[in-house]
Amino acid sequence: MAKSPEEQHPVKTFGWAARDPSGVLSPFNFSRRATGDDDVRFKVLYCGICHSDLHSIKNEWGFSAYPLVPGHEIVGIVTEVGSKVEKFKVGDKVGVGCMVGACHSCESCSSDLENYCPKMILTYGSTYYDGTITYGGYSDVMVANERYCVRFPDNLPLDAGAPLLCAGITVYSPLKYYGLTEPGMHVGVVGLGGLGHVAVKFAKAFGLKVTVISTSPSKKEEAMGHLGADSFLVSRDPDQMQAAMGTMDGIIDTVSAVHPIVPLLSLLKSHGKLVMVGAPEKPLELPVFPLIVGRKMVAGSCTGGMKETQEMIDFAAKHNITTDIEVITMDYVNTAMERLAKADVRYRFVIDIGKSFTATNP
Amino acid sequence: MAKSPEEQHPVKTFGWAARDPSGVLSPFNFSRRATGDDDVRFKVLYCGICHSDLHSIKNEWGFSAYPLVPGHEIVGIVTEVGSKVEKFKVGDKVGVGCMVGACHSCESCSSDLENYCPKMILTYGSTYYDGTITYGGYSDVMVANERYCVRFPDNLPLDAGAPLLCAGITVYSPLKYYGLTEPGMHVGVVGLGGLGHVAVKFAKAFGLKVTVISTSPSKKEEAMGHLGADSFLVSRDPDQMQAAMGTMDGIIDTVSAVHPIVPLLSLLKSHGKLVMVGAPEKPLELPVFPLIVGRKMVAGSCTGGMKETQEMIDFAAKHNITTDIEVITMDYVNTAMERLAKADVRYRFVIDIGKSFTATNP
Repeated sequence: MAKSPEEQHPVKTFGWAARDPSGVLSPFNFSRRATGDDDVRFKVLYCGICHSDLHSIKNEWGFSAYPLVPGHEIVGIVTEVGSKVEKFKVGDKVGVGCMVGACHSCESCSSDLENYCPKMILTYGSTYYDGTITYGGYSDVMVANERYCVRFPDNLPLDAGAPLLCAGITVYSPLKYYGLTEPGMHVGVVGLGGLGHVAVKFAKAFGLKVTVISTSPSKKEEAMGHLGADSFLVSRDPDQMQAAMGTMDGIIDTVSAVHPIVPLLSLLKSHGKLVMVGAPEKPLELPVFPLIVGRKMVAGSCTGGMKETQEMIDFAAKHNITTDIEVITMDYVNTAMERLAKADVRYRFVIDIGKSFTATNP
Repeated sequence: MAKSPEEQHPVKTFGWAARDPSGVLSPFNFSRRATGDDDVRFKVLYCGICHSDLHSIKNEWGFSAYPLVPGHEIVGIVTEVGSKVEKFKVGDKVGVGCMVGACHSCESCSSDLENYCPKMILTYGSTYYDGTITYGGYSDVMVANERYCVRFPDNLPLDAGAPLLCAGITVYSPLKYYGLTEPGMHVGVVGLGGLGHVAVKFAKAFGLKVTVISTSPSKKEEAMGHLGADSFLVSRDPDQMQAAMGTMDGIIDTVSAVHPIVPLLSLLKSHGKLVMVGAPEKPLELPVFPLIVGRKMVAGSCTGGMKETQEMIDFAAKHNITTDIEVITMDYVNTAMERLAKADVRYRFVIDIGKSFTATNP
């Protein structure tokens, strides 16, 4: 008979888990494996709340298994390293993002694109090499193969830096892959949430002209005044959209609700690229004519490989890029999820794990 | 008052035109301009019938003006050149494809991509620099700026080479632009018509593995036996499609009817590219999830610039690539259009203009 989550591994761990598709999170005792030769164990200090966490706890993508401990924007301090670990030592700052394993032999893995490996192991809700289920960062202890650990730069704050591990790499990687990093290029960012606000910051750091595209005129001051976007477009204003037609080299679309993409394709120059990083649950309407006459593309991108994640976080540290966050403790997490569902956060909740668990599980 | 098509230019020309959206073609007297300094005049010998011609004569795209002389796969023999013409002399074989002008100052024109210039002038049904309407190659005389004339290689037959000027460049250009030319890559070709059959030939010449994807099992022998495809997939056969999942680097989709693209996206490897060169009139359903998890793209491509068109036709000559054609005379053109609408041609009609007009208008 399979052992219980609390007994299957030697290292007692405490976190919060969802037990069913209600998505309500509650305290959960489980365990982590002993630190293997290539493993890094760390005390979790902060964990960001990603919109995927919300989808997962409610089983909105249909493949959640319970109990489910979410969290894949995890930072902490190394407490133990395996005998073969080379990159980390006890006391180092470390981060783990969306994945903790892959096959390491396929074409994607060989190209440092573990994130596209068909056997990629997610940080939570996946089956690990040893057959046990992975649990995420809403917990006090984490262990991961060092390949999946990022060195966290000293000058980057742990709390406001944590969301870079998912939100950051999710927007950084497509800017690089789709060639949208040449200074002077004009890039649009659709949606000003967790992903969008950090996309603006990376794009500005690359020297791009950045236009935020949003349904809400109220976000103009925030986009331009606070985040440093060069311009702002209200997507529901036909005159503004018309005036901006054919001006953009690329668009990073972070919106995960169903929305029309024809107006976005119109904003692109010839050879322009519309990159989707938010995943609407239903298919979008794709008109083919605009793709053909302007040699445009609609493309996707999903986080990034470990090498690029390290590059991204080093770039962020160099350019002082952090996410804008609201720090909470774990007892507030269910309320935070409700607020996240209404996009009522500017722009990312981060759970202060150290503080939460000193209080709830001393 | 504007002069009639017959009187507005000095060079009497005879062709066949559609007069209204019935699309019926009938004899039409018009005129061509005198050969300008940069112009090449030629006697038209052959003109391919492109599916666009059918759309245009019936005004299916909504911007046709009548009378309309179609034809943009035009080859002939030079009869006169302007004083500044450098590339051509009387007696040369010459070809004109989809366009005859552009602005020559925009970013696209500067990059030899006149085909994406916002002011690009189509070979027929567009307004030329002098304000007159352009007429296509279903006619006995053609004149074009030498920039829009292609040197027709000596070893390429004029009749079977003519359709390369549109069908050829339409599939060659995306293979190049989207990086689908590395020997050993696996490319799918959807639809085995005028575009599809020549896509197979170019892809094979690049050294690719080619799979034809079709709704008709009956095309297997033709695809593999005659055209040299390496394999054949019946898109309606779930087992075959399942077995081929994740195997292709790219797909050239030539189908201009509305069709599902989800199965095609499934055939792609991660980072694979689905390139649409046929334009369905209604939007397709685009699921975003597969784009994201595999960093895939749906993209378009529209013919090619003049530099690349010359490169394409030289490549075709070198690799003995021609189109498979059925040669007709002009008196059969309306029947040919009816057959084309039913895809009843293997694979391209080409009008023998020289023979037609000796007979009908000596």
